Formats: sequence, C-alpha cells, structure tokens
Amino acid sequence: MDKVLRINVGADGGPKAKTEGLGEYAGLGGRAMTSLVVCKEVPPLCHPLGPENKLVIAPGIMSGSAAPTSGRVSIGCKSPLTGTIKEANSGGSGAQALSRLGYAAVILEGARKNSDLYRIVINSKEVRIEKCNDWRGLTNYDLNYRIRDEFGTKVSVFSIGTAGEMLMCNSTIAVTDPECRPSRHAGRGGVGAVMGSKGIKCIIIEYEDTKMREPKDATKFKDANKRFAEGLLKHGVTGQGLPAYGTNVLVNILNEAGGLPTKNFSTGRFADADKISGETMAATITKRGGNPTHGCHRGCIIKCSGIYVDKDGKYISKQPEYETVWAHGANCGISDLDAIAEMDYWDDNYGLDTIEMGATIAVAMDAGVIQFGDAKGALNLIHETGKGTHLGRILGAGTAVTAKCFGLERAPVVKGQAMPAYDPRAVKGQGVTYATTTMGADHTAGYAVTANILGVGGTVDPLKPAGQVELSRNLQIATAALDSTGWCLFIAFAILDQPETFQAMVDSLNAMTGLSLTADDVNELGKKILRAEKDFNEKAGFGPQQDRLPMYFSREALAPHGVKFDVSDADLDAVYKF
Amino acid sequence: MDKVLRINVGADGGPKAKTEGLGEYAGLGGRAMTSLVVCKEVPPLCHPLGPENKLVIAPGIMSGSAAPTSGRVSIGCKSPLTGTIKEANSGGSGAQALSRLGYAAVILEGARKNSDLYRIVINSKEVRIEKCNDWRGLTNYDLNYRIRDEFGTKVSVFSIGTAGEMLMCNSTIAVTDPECRPSRHAGRGGVGAVMGSKGIKCIIIEYEDTKMREPKDATKFKDANKRFAEGLLKHGVTGQGLPAYGTNVLVNILNEAGGLPTKNFSTGRFADADKISGETMAATITKRGGNPTHGCHRGCIIKCSGIYVDKDGKYISKQPEYETVWAHGANCGISDLDAIAEMDYWDDNYGLDTIEMGATIAVAMDAGVIQFGDAKGALNLIHETGKGTHLGRILGAGTAVTAKCFGLERAPVVKGQAMPAYDPRAVKGQGVTYATTTMGADHTAGYAVTANILGVGGTVDPLKPAGQVELSRNLQIATAALDSTGWCLFIAFAILDQPETFQAMVDSLNAMTGLSLTADDVNELGKKILRAEKDFNEKAGFGPQQDRLPMYFSREALAPHGVKFDVSDADLDAVYKF
Repeated sequence: MDKVLRINVGADGGPKAKTEGLGEYAGLGGRAMTSLVVCKEVPPLCHPLGPENKLVIAPGIMSGSAAPTSGRVSIGCKSPLTGTIKEANSGGSGAQALSRLGYAAVILEGARKNSDLYRIVINSKEVRIEKCNDWRGLTNYDLNYRIRDEFGTKVSVFSIGTAGEMLMCNSTIAVTDPECRPSRHAGRGGVGAVMGSKGIKCIIIEYEDTKMREPKDATKFKDANKRFAEGLLKHGVTGQGLPAYGTNVLVNILNEAGGLPTKNFSTGRFADADKISGETMAATITKRGGNPTHGCHRGCIIKCSGIYVDKDGKYISKQPEYETVWAHGANCGISDLDAIAEMDYWDDNYGLDTIEMGATIAVAMDAGVIQFGDAKGALNLIHETGKGTHLGRILGAGTAVTAKCFGLERAPVVKGQAMPAYDPRAVKGQGVTYATTTMGADHTAGYAVTANILGVGGTVDPLKPAGQVELSRNLQIATAALDSTGWCLFIAFAILDQPETFQAMVDSLNAMTGLSLTADDVNELGKKILRAEKDFNEKAGFGPQQDRLPMYFSREALAPHGVKFDVSDADLDAVYKF
Repeated sequence: MDKVLRINVGADGGPKAKTEGLGEYAGLGGRAMTSLVVCKEVPPLCHPLGPENKLVIAPGIMSGSAAPTSGRVSIGCKSPLTGTIKEANSGGSGAQALSRLGYAAVILEGARKNSDLYRIVINSKEVRIEKCNDWRGLTNYDLNYRIRDEFGTKVSVFSIGTAGEMLMCNSTIAVTDPECRPSRHAGRGGVGAVMGSKGIKCIIIEYEDTKMREPKDATKFKDANKRFAEGLLKHGVTGQGLPAYGTNVLVNILNEAGGLPTKNFSTGRFADADKISGETMAATITKRGGNPTHGCHRGCIIKCSGIYVDKDGKYISKQPEYETVWAHGANCGISDLDAIAEMDYWDDNYGLDTIEMGATIAVAMDAGVIQFGDAKGALNLIHETGKGTHLGRILGAGTAVTAKCFGLERAPVVKGQAMPAYDPRAVKGQGVTYATTTMGADHTAGYAVTANILGVGGTVDPLKPAGQVELSRNLQIATAALDSTGWCLFIAFAILDQPETFQAMVDSLNAMTGLSLTADDVNELGKKILRAEKDFNEKAGFGPQQDRLPMYFSREALAPHGVKFDVSDADLDAVYKF
C-alpha cells in the first residue's frame, strides 16, 4: 500500500492512468484517505457531477492483511445526494484485492471528454483502460456474468448499475463478494453517479497472483489477532447474534423498543414485525437450504451476511440486511420476506441504495403513488427507477426530491439523505447522529443504538435527550477512526464492551504498521477526520442550521411512547465541540 | 388600510377569519409588510408546505390611491422553491381592491385539517369562507369564468391553478387584470403551493362599492402626482419603449449586448432574435387587431402590458413579457411567437411561473427529454406539468430539481431558483444580484441591466466586475423600498435618471401618508427590509456559500464575448455590507 492510482478521465484519447507515491497521504487508509483527499483536492462548492469532483476508493490500513474482519473499503467524493462530503463504505473483496496490489487509493478525476464508457483493469503487471460501450445499460449481475466469462472468478469488481450510469442521486458502487456476486455496496450518497459522471462502468481487479500483506511485526501481529478474534467470538452480538441472524436480528429488538420506523415514520411499531424478523429469516433460509452465516469477504469471522434462497433453494439475493428489511418492509408496510429479498436483489442489480430506495418508496406511498403494503407495486417502483422512466427519475433522485416533487412535507431526511431504520424520536442518540454527522442522515456514523437500545458500551435512555450528545460525539469520533482501518464497524460491539479486545485491536494495528499508537492516538485520528469533513461541509454551505431534523419530528409524537424529538439545538451544536 | 385579515385554516369546522388592527405592522405595505410578518411569525427552519409557514398578501402603501402606476401587490412566505424568504409581486387589480377595502394584509396561517378546498370572499360587509370542492382541478381561466358567472366583473381574484393545488415548487398565484383575466402573476418561488397547502383555491374581492383611498394632503398629492406622471411620460423607457413594445423591447437589446441566454445559457445570442423581438411582436399584434398598449391595472400610465391575438384576432394570451419570450423562446431555441404566446397562456392557466418553466424546459432539452427548438414538445411539457404526470411532477418542481432528476450539471439556478433573461457572465451586475439577493436568482431584486445595458442611472461596463457590487447593492436597497410602495418597479427608469421625478415620487408618498420622508429615509426602509430578509435566510441556513453562482458560469466562457463570471467571492460577500 505505497501508491496511488490516478485516472484522468479527461486525457486526450481517453482516460489515462498514472501511478504515484503517497506523498502527504502516506499512512492513511479508508475514510481518512478518502476524506482528506477530497478535502484537499475537491472545491467544496463544485457540482458533484462536474469535472471538479473526484471519486476516491481506498482500502483500510489493515485491509489485505491477516487481521480478522478487515475487508472494508471506503469510497469518497462530494455527494450528489447531499452536497456534503461523503464516505460510503462497503464489504466485499475489493479492499483486499486493491491493497494486496499495493494501492492505498484509486482516484478518478477530471472532465469526461465524450460519452464513451470505460472499464479499468488492474493487476500486478498493468493498469489497462478500455472502452466498454457494449456494456452500457447492463445491471450489476449481468455485468459481472460477462466479467466472469472473460476474466474468471479470481477478480474483484467495483461497478455501477443502470442507476449510476443515469447519474442518479441514489446510486451505489457495487463491490463483489468472494463468489463474484455484486451484492456488497458503497450505498449511500450517490457515489455511483460520481463514477458514472467520470464515464467508468467498472474497475476489475485481478488478484490471483497477489499475497496477503505482511505486518511489520509478525509475532506480535499473530498474537494480537488471536486475542482480537477471541474477543469477537466471545461477545454476544459478534459471536452469536450477527452470525446466527445477520443484522436483521434488530427487527424484533427495535420493534420492541418502539423505534422501528413504520409506514414512512408514522409509528414506531410494525404489527407484522415477526414475519420479517431475523429469527424468521434465518429459519426460512435454513429450511430452504440457503446459508444464513456467510462472510462478505474472506477472513471475516463475524460472518453476518448470508444467502437468501426461494422455496426451491434457488438464489434470490444475498440475505437482506436489517436496514433493507426495514426499508422495504416495515417502512413500506410490507411483511413478505420473499418480496423484500427480491427488492434487495433488484436494488443491488440496478445499483440503488436499499435504505434510500425504501425510504423513497415509503414517501411515494405516503403521497399516494401506490398504497402502503403493496409489495408488487413497490418492486415495480424499483424497476421504474432502474429503467429510468420519468417516475423512476423522480425516485432515483432520492427521498427528499421525491417528497419535493409530490409536495409532501413528511420526508425523513437530513441534508437530503434518508434516515435509516431507527426513529430519531425513540432512539434519540441516533437522532443526534442523523442531525450532526457530516454525512447526512447515517446510522453508521455514530451508532448510538449501542447504548440506547443494546446496552453495549453503557446505557443511555433512548427516549430522553440526556446523555445523547456525548454518546453520539464519542461514537462519531471512534467511527471515523475505525472507518479508516478497514475493520468492519461491527467489531465495535466487542471493543466497546471488552477492554482487552480494544487493546488487541490497537496491538494488531501497531504490529501491522510498526507504529506505537495509543487509544488516544486513535481518538485523535477520528477527530482529525471529522474536523476536516466538517470544514469541507462548512465551505460547501452547511452550517448549524443544516444540523437539524425536519421540523415534523419535533411536532408529531411517535407511538407507542408518544415521544417527540426534543434534543435542543444548542445540544446539537455541541456535538462537534471537541 | 388599517386592518389585517387573518385566516386560520386550521380552525375547528373549517377556516375562520379574524380582522385585527395593524399593531406593530402599522405603516407597512407591500414587501415591507410581507417580509416583516414572515420574519416575525414564521420559523425560518419550517417546511414551506407545513403548518408553520404563512402566506402574506399585502398591497403597497400607495395602492388604491390616485398615484399613477401604484397597483402592485406583494405576496410573501417561506418559499417552497428556494427555502428562503420570498416576496413575489404582481400587477393586476388585486392591490387596489384589497387596499380600498382597508386591508393592509391578508394572512393565511395554520394547519389545514382536511383536504377540502375553500374560497374566501371579501367585500365591504363581510368575509365569507366557503367550501369549493367542485372547483378542484380548475385552471385559472376556467375558474375565473365561473367566478365571473357568479360574481360579475367588479371583482378582483387571487387564485391558484392546478400547479398550486398540486403543491408544485413552481406555482404562482394569479391576480386578475381589469378585465378579470388571470393574466398577472406573483410568479416566483412557488407561492401558489403555499396557498394550496392552506387549502385555499381563491380569494374573491368584491370591490364595486369601494372608493379610492384619500391622501392626507390632497393638494400636495395632486401636484406631486402630476409632476410624477409627467416624469414617467417624458422618459424614453417609460414614456415610449415600454408602452410601444412592452417589456419585450429588451430582446433586441440583450441580444445585441450578447447577454440573451440562449439554449439553456449556452450562448449569449439567439440567431432568430428578431423573430421574437418586441418590435416584431408589437407589429404582429397591431396588424392582427390586438392591443400592444394596455395597463395591467387601472391608473397605470406606463401601460406595458397588451393583448396578444391570433391571425383571426382571437385572444391567445396577454402580450407575453420579455422574460416569458426569452424563457420559452431564445432559451429553448424557439422562434415562433404564436407558440410562445400559447405557452404563456397555459403557464398562466395552470399557474406556472413562465421564467421557471422556460428555464426548466431548456434544462429538459439539454438533458435530451426533447430537442431544442421543438415548440410543440415544449408546449406538451407545460401540459405534462399542469396535469401532474410523472414527468410533470419533475418539471413542476423547478429547474434545479429537473436537472437533479436528469443528472445534469448545467442548471442555471441560485438557491434553487432559475435565473431570468440576462446571462450573468455578460451582464455581470445581474450576476451579482442573482447571487446575493435574498430571493434566489431574481432579476427584479436589483435590476443592474439599467446601468449595465440601458445607460439608465449611470453606466457600468457589463462585461467587467468593476462597479457591479455597488450598483447591485444600491439597486437592491432601492428596490426593497420601492416594492413596499405599490409602485411598479418600472418607475425606476424615470426616477433614476430624473431627480425631479424622484422628488415627485417622494412628495406623493409624503402627501399620501402625512409623513415627511427624505430620500435617505426611503433608503433606510430598503435597508431595514433587506436586513430582516437576510437574517431570516441566515436562520434558515443560507450563508455566504449560498450567495454564489453555479461553478460552471466561472468555467465556461459565453459567446460572443468569451466572458466568464469573475466577480470575486469577497466582492459578492460585500454586497450586504451596508
């Protein structure tokens, strides 16, 4: 990981690759890399789809090593959905493939010269950029079938579906899983459209002849990872809940807590929650011969992903995540798991973020486009989007724009990005994160569900404002650092609760890099990233007034607890005072 | 003008009217009234279509008097299009009707309880509010035919068409002209949607038994108005250009100056400009037996409006304004005046702002929805919008949203509102106004075309940054004051060039009100209004970063002069330093 690959898409004769040293970006990975490159190189007031924006793809600093569960990749840019800085991260095999080839970052930059579509092929010998106009309009699965035919299965692929090609604000970059399925996604903020605006359909990484990255101190590394793995396997969430039920273990928990946003955030409980719960899903998958415990990248020991199959055992989609099950399920009043899995598949296939898409469909339902509970209608709306019909152009622009087009106030968004699966009135720590993170409404940026609901890393009453600012602030700082390592955010459950697992993580990091970082140093890295992101956003026009939830969350009480969002503006403004 | 009519649309049993004294709003009119009420009573972060927003309708302080050309009405709210404060003003007979009945403001407020549609009938005896669900979905002309049938022709009507009912961000409030045609519009910023969100289809003012408002000093008033009228008739623009050719006299002038935005602001000259010029239009109207010189309200002595008829002398629309001819003509590559007039009619009929609609169609053309120059296709897009098809829902949300939905960078907007008919690169004073006015891109807010192009009120080179800030600042201050009087902005030509006409205006104002204002006092009023509006916007999240043009205006040079927008950020930030 000692080089940066820059692709100038505006070069004469087509995009040109240039490999250079890390320079001032040395030592950075993941979100630290993407955000600091964007902060330095992208003018904050540029148009996200214009020539001044850049797309930065960066594996974490631990990615490609033997450290367990370290295969996350960060993708950064100025977001077409929010107008803020954006880091969307993803699992899959992409981080490992890139990092083993030595790339700390791939940067797409410049002004596309014509409408040709290109593919970038990266391997240990070369970087090739080739026209692929015959791949225009392919969905992610169809594209990857072609890539598999031509390149075999020892490749990792970053790609955009039709949504990214159409420059939709809701468009992802798909990352293939170990079986070459485009089922992992850098989902949020429309990063796919930025890749599309550069005329790049996919990046194909041939990694067959690569080796695992070596740590600076192999003995210490092995020892630290052993302790780290033990810690992950010991903790109830990472060792049992997530492997057994996937992230969807949360449906019953959030429903019980009265914080499962239902029918466009109109109530906090879904009557049919049990029909879409993680327990029901795992039983269904197991009964049908699918696989409820699967790693999205090699070397993951949590294995929260899975394979969802139909009654005949045929692949429908990856096991839908909690956020997806919520977005297309409870939030749309839909309780049919098969229908939800099919929507998940088509979201992945067109390259649409499931959270944004589900929230958008719920808004369309609220506006009367179709009825709540209409699973067929909801799937059709995804097809409209992926095909770019006029209705699809509305929906593909995201939840906020959809509400604007249909004249609806009730758009659950912050900075133009849809809220995920935790009602901010009943899980107030999440509300603080939604309001204040540099990313627009984002649950992962400071996952206060931990102490609010799960009793992980302490306990803070989810229904009250007290303590939420400190909780969210600390989590946002820690997350920014964690998002830079390549480690999956889910290790947070174990490291928050088990000091020895936290120490093992720090030891692993130091053994890998040859540094001697302390917990404080890690914290400082998180603060540095957040400060840079905040500075970018301020220069892009986002001040305290944008760090607010829509007013109706403070006006309309949420059943069953009858709670409103009542964290004060002054408290919200204190989150970034560190 | 000593009372305010408040309509609480959320009262039990349907909207309720309450008349009250002016209180702290005493002495205010027009924009001073609308903006200060909005600043005091509307929370800046509310949703424009939510219960916290209010719609304020206020005649100018001179309206309803014998002062010439004083029939403008201001309509204010938080704008659904821009999210900023908004004052959209209009000619027509509304200001005179309201002010003669003694109303300094009508305020629609509260949370609509159900989906019923109401009409408000105001006369000297009562205020009646009645359900009018059978008028749902009527266009403005059809609505006014019904009103004429029921109420006769001695009424003035404020109404929304289908766009306002559908809560579109591009939706106007129509104001009838003396012949009861809904041809004058408070066009910009989506004020129609705010009226729609309150469930009010129309306000019908029966003014038959009202009298002209009396001045405090009749002798001085008569004398001042005589001098004022002489001044207006003497000046080339107000005495000759506007009456003879209407506002469309500007097509040839701006085309010659290379500042006529053509085909979505891609060049500054339109090859077919002469086919759509004011001279051609006036000749066409005259030949066909129409009327090129008509007052939009009684007592106007400029008479820049007119009646556009077809080859058989049949009414097509009012004589389209310059902004409309540009928006649907040059900016869309369309050179057929009859087609432009038909589009003008349908814009008025559905209640769509012609500037926003034309800019939106041009963006749709740029995105490939239809081709530049396709007049039939353009008219069809207006019908799609007015009928609320899915494509129409995109277009009805305005230029910025349309560009977002179709993934286009080239959206000529500031704060979400489309730029009018002066390219900011070739008329840089207008660029400064677009960027910095509190209203989003708005030409009337500080009409620097005067000194930039017309040689009125001095001369400032339109192609250079020098002097533009001071020019725009002074015009913005003067305009805010003028917009409060009810006098038409077009008197500015005469009062800028002729000190004695300016003095006559001040004398008229003082004789009417019994005050002893100086020019400085008028200036101070303008500053007070702007400061309040700016403060509202800042609290709504609009800082210096929003006072910018889209980046492509600084990147792409405009033919024929090869100019970019190069007023510095620091200069833009200096506009409101007063």
